[in-house]
Amino acid sequence: MIRVAIIGASGYTGAESIKILLGHSEAELTYLTAIPEECGAVEDVFPQFRGRCGLEIEPLDIDKLAELADVVLCCLPHKVSMGFVPKLLDADLKVIDFSADYRLKDVSVYEKFYAVKHTDRDNLAHAVYGLPELFRDQIQDAKLIANPGCFPTGALLAIAPLLKEGLIELDSIVVNAVTGSSGAGKNPSVKFHFPNMNENLFAYGIGTHRHMPEMEQIAGEIAGLGVQVLFQPHAGAFDRGIYSTVYCSPEGRIGAERLVQLYDDFYGDEPFVQVCNDAPAVKNIVGTNYCHVFPTLIKGRVVCFSVIDNLVKGASGQAIQNMNILFGLEETLGLE
Amino acid sequence: MIRVAIIGASGYTGAESIKILLGHSEAELTYLTAIPEECGAVEDVFPQFRGRCGLEIEPLDIDKLAELADVVLCCLPHKVSMGFVPKLLDADLKVIDFSADYRLKDVSVYEKFYAVKHTDRDNLAHAVYGLPELFRDQIQDAKLIANPGCFPTGALLAIAPLLKEGLIELDSIVVNAVTGSSGAGKNPSVKFHFPNMNENLFAYGIGTHRHMPEMEQIAGEIAGLGVQVLFQPHAGAFDRGIYSTVYCSPEGRIGAERLVQLYDDFYGDEPFVQVCNDAPAVKNIVGTNYCHVFPTLIKGRVVCFSVIDNLVKGASGQAIQNMNILFGLEETLGLE
Amino acid sequence: MIRVAIIGASGYTGAESIKILLGHSEAELTYLTAIPEECGAVEDVFPQFRGRCGLEIEPLDIDKLAELADVVLCCLPHKVSMGFVPKLLDADLKVIDFSADYRLKDVSVYEKFYAVKHTDRDNLAHAVYGLPELFRDQIQDAKLIANPGCFPTGALLAIAPLLKEGLIELDSIVVNAVTGSSGAGKNPSVKFHFPNMNENLFAYGIGTHRHMPEMEQIAGEIAGLGVQVLFQPHAGAFDRGIYSTVYCSPEGRIGAERLVQLYDDFYGDEPFVQVCNDAPAVKNIVGTNYCHVFPTLIKGRVVCFSVIDNLVKGASGQAIQNMNILFGLEETLGLE
Amino acid sequence: MIRVAIIGASGYTGAESIKILLGHSEAELTYLTAIPEECGAVEDVFPQFRGRCGLEIEPLDIDKLAELADVVLCCLPHKVSMGFVPKLLDADLKVIDFSADYRLKDVSVYEKFYAVKHTDRDNLAHAVYGLPELFRDQIQDAKLIANPGCFPTGALLAIAPLLKEGLIELDSIVVNAVTGSSGAGKNPSVKFHFPNMNENLFAYGIGTHRHMPEMEQIAGEIAGLGVQVLFQPHAGAFDRGIYSTVYCSPEGRIGAERLVQLYDDFYGDEPFVQVCNDAPAVKNIVGTNYCHVFPTLIKGRVVCFSVIDNLVKGASGQAIQNMNILFGLEETLGLE
Repeated sequence: MIRVAIIGASGYTGAESIKILLGHSEAELTYLTAIPEECGAVEDVFPQFRGRCGLEIEPLDIDKLAELADVVLCCLPHKVSMGFVPKLLDADLKVIDFSADYRLKDVSVYEKFYAVKHTDRDNLAHAVYGLPELFRDQIQDAKLIANPGCFPTGALLAIAPLLKEGLIELDSIVVNAVTGSSGAGKNPSVKFHFPNMNENLFAYGIGTHRHMPEMEQIAGEIAGLGVQVLFQPHAGAFDRGIYSTVYCSPEGRIGAERLVQLYDDFYGDEPFVQVCNDAPAVKNIVGTNYCHVFPTLIKGRVVCFSVIDNLVKGASGQAIQNMNILFGLEETLGLE
Repeated sequence: MIRVAIIGASGYTGAESIKILLGHSEAELTYLTAIPEECGAVEDVFPQFRGRCGLEIEPLDIDKLAELADVVLCCLPHKVSMGFVPKLLDADLKVIDFSADYRLKDVSVYEKFYAVKHTDRDNLAHAVYGLPELFRDQIQDAKLIANPGCFPTGALLAIAPLLKEGLIELDSIVVNAVTGSSGAGKNPSVKFHFPNMNENLFAYGIGTHRHMPEMEQIAGEIAGLGVQVLFQPHAGAFDRGIYSTVYCSPEGRIGAERLVQLYDDFYGDEPFVQVCNDAPAVKNIVGTNYCHVFPTLIKGRVVCFSVIDNLVKGASGQAIQNMNILFGLEETLGLE
Repeated sequence: MIRVAIIGASGYTGAESIKILLGHSEAELTYLTAIPEECGAVEDVFPQFRGRCGLEIEPLDIDKLAELADVVLCCLPHKVSMGFVPKLLDADLKVIDFSADYRLKDVSVYEKFYAVKHTDRDNLAHAVYGLPELFRDQIQDAKLIANPGCFPTGALLAIAPLLKEGLIELDSIVVNAVTGSSGAGKNPSVKFHFPNMNENLFAYGIGTHRHMPEMEQIAGEIAGLGVQVLFQPHAGAFDRGIYSTVYCSPEGRIGAERLVQLYDDFYGDEPFVQVCNDAPAVKNIVGTNYCHVFPTLIKGRVVCFSVIDNLVKGASGQAIQNMNILFGLEETLGLE
Repeated sequence: MIRVAIIGASGYTGAESIKILLGHSEAELTYLTAIPEECGAVEDVFPQFRGRCGLEIEPLDIDKLAELADVVLCCLPHKVSMGFVPKLLDADLKVIDFSADYRLKDVSVYEKFYAVKHTDRDNLAHAVYGLPELFRDQIQDAKLIANPGCFPTGALLAIAPLLKEGLIELDSIVVNAVTGSSGAGKNPSVKFHFPNMNENLFAYGIGTHRHMPEMEQIAGEIAGLGVQVLFQPHAGAFDRGIYSTVYCSPEGRIGAERLVQLYDDFYGDEPFVQVCNDAPAVKNIVGTNYCHVFPTLIKGRVVCFSVIDNLVKGASGQAIQNMNILFGLEETLGLE
């Protein structure tokens, strides 16, 4: 039984991780922490777990953590995470970090987009980007996994086969995405106040979203060359899910059949990526760790659609998938 | 042209009042105020009015107000309102107050439910409850109108004919209501954070909602006897509307035909109350000043359904309706 | 491994049953059927199961069914079900029937509310009402379980302790319920067309809903006396969940403390019923088999709130709970 | 008083047109028609008009129509419309046609995308495309106005200034749009069944949407050159609104300041187009005839955002705006 701790357990990704782990047959939750004002019985912090979880969320005690857990899901916010991860690694714990702190290999890019000095370059250097469909081999030997951002997960799975095969112009990629509102996190705000957000849709993070350089870095790794991505997110009036519509120009000619074959080959053995033959829909993947993708050609361009649940494949589900790989378990365990 | 000012214009009822008045042919907005941190061009405070309204929302200046307006829509919160209304009346302005401060005639009830001392008993004494369908005569001569609460408007219109005719047991009334989320006001909160409120429904204010004594007072006035109301509100995942389902026991026997006749007679000349022959629906009245009611008998009880838009008939629309009456205009002017 | 078949698998309760059984460690889906026009690969009929289920939904073949399954979840509609159940029982299969055909013991009531002649009185006589919290003992020995209606499940769990203890007047019960739209089933209709249903709320089935006599029958069994229930359902703009607000008059005096103690005692050992100390919320139980209840006193009346997911505790989850009991498995297996 | 008839009044655009005209001070509804099975009192067909409209919707009688109306809003579906419009024009009525039948000047394109032979080429030849911001002069003298499609309205207003000034590469335009569900029309369908559409988002009409050639034709007219548009619509879980995000490559260099200036100049006198300095939001224009646009530069590309209400500026509101122009009225009359 793998013993799992969650740091920063009081937010949406904490709750989703708890939910998944409650049903995991080879892992058990042993320790949950949060800032003091968000501590308490899990049942009280998250009424959806009444009768389902007897644990307390407590202020973090590293010694206790080291004693109780084999692996830590670190659900702390960006910038905060890198203050804790070194201590967790020093305590010989495996760490799956949900923040962006260990995703961007180029520190200057991180420091520009997150407007803070990076304080843990050592661990950054050996962190592995936890997108199993692309980096499974590295994940199984990792000590520190940088769990991918939700938008990069959706966008990268949409176009990875094309990048890998060098079939698209690397400065032509436009990622238009719409995310459910849980992506905004649990803290109330004017924009996500129900009477404001309901029946609404709007673009945000125009030209500045932090997932843009993340997409570019990983896309570049896949392609083996520099990649430019124009990423434009929008917020929609639904709880969960990210719909990515990716437009790009083919490098040379590519036929519809070859396109489908390429995706079928690339994802044929993947348990969580399904290649569809029509536009995917958010509702078909909500609550699951699945990604549905559909590549097609429109007027000479390649257009790829993908959907994921931002809290599952885009966060907690992918973290558990990484954990399963890390501990040599069946990759799909506990996930649906 | 009636000159209208709005105090506390930066909230939802302020916005709805502005919207209605922009289309009113006999009234014009002349002055808008709010607390300093919520001031600014109307276009900036409420982007839905871009290009539609050139006014500024300014900090309140009573002298300026007295000069610019004939009537004030006072959209201040409960407890705050009674600090301003005396000054407005002293400046010889007519006042339509959206708060509860002038609704409850029994000061001890007010002080119990609102947990504050009432500081303006003089004006309270002559304030008129602004439910035109029941108090039209008093409204036309009023100086101070207490605009009714949203839930009382829906519930009272649902059962007024029965109360008036003495057809129900006065301790048997149960009002089960579901309100759209705009009833919670514009300030973000955990409960109304979109990812929490969406796909949700819950009861609140259990046994303590402040609209309960308001319903009882007015129901008592209509019946001419003391009335007990068990009022239970719920919040639903929609923007606007209040669905009231009112259960009560008939005093003696009443047939279905007589029931319908009673309502048809009572509301036959009312422009904004429509008696339906089936369950009303929120969507049929959203954005309008209408109330749809449907009385019926189920297993020997009287069950009355009503729907209103909480921001229109339950607030700003009813205020304009009151204003129209107050100034001798056609009652429906500017309203749809 | 228990082998489970689903008849009428192509609707919402079929899909929910498949979802639950895919994660059940002691049961496996072996056979799925539907009317011919709704047959096909599960992955095609329900795109949410892409990559998750390799089964086909086929036209029913009773012999094949008898060979492949130990138990049948019969998800056929009312009136249709009783045409198939006798054959299933004759084939020595255990049957959990989702329809109303085996719930109402009084055939004349069934025939009045469902407007059809009952054609299987023999099996009706020995069918067990599958509400485990009240009839667990009978369930474990049953051959035919009548899985309860969604509204009766929510309403009965809300007031069972009061009925059992004889603490309320048996003609005073009013059940006001709001259901999510999945309760309407999968077939498109004008009322549930998205642009009509969205942002809407309305009452329906006024005085005629078929779950009213079901509530009365079971409430009567619990109380040991005849019970009258005024049940009024409403449809709300959310996918899943039933919010029941039950009003009743106490028989004599009852204090708040005794009320809470009563519920704590009654449900203390129940895995799926949680007694709350504040109003429950739909969102806290969506996707789970849990029922959250909260009993309280308002102005001398007892008001009990309950929430369930209509497709889980109100249908498929409860069916699996019944199946677990029937086969001597841990009652919570496969359920969350 | 202009006398207005609506043919095909029983759908969503009919209802929206009725709503607007009920509040129009210089026009009155005189005649409403629909197919026989959708006729009846307006109050019954559309319960939102109870007490607001005393008209009947009747089967069409051309003679009666000719006698009662000066102008016809023809809300018939594509392909049906061109069977009626010639008769209306013969009866000397002005016609504003909501269908696509008179929008596409190239009959072969029409016949390809609508899969039907065009039967009224004569009138097609002199029909005017009713986008007032671009074709106001032609509209005022027209006899037959082809009211624009909802998606083309949003997309064209987003990029018209760029097209007019020749600032973008004409084969680089990608229009990513999300529409509210009312765009699907009033007829129930599986995709728009509430439990399926709610909490969902999906692309549709991939590579085949009929508004693509319409955009290309009008964009070409504005640019004076052939234009290629890759248009990809998505359906979102909200009632109304179209969010268009348009990506294109600048022809040479263009600075952010010039971009904003260009839009300010182009739309400065337009009553219904507002140039914003941040991403627009659906909720800010719902229920109005406004279009909010925001042009910006991201990574060397021009990205333009626009929002409209598909039933107002995208249909009925624009039709009334056209009617106002046609009859020399103030262009904003009756519109908000």
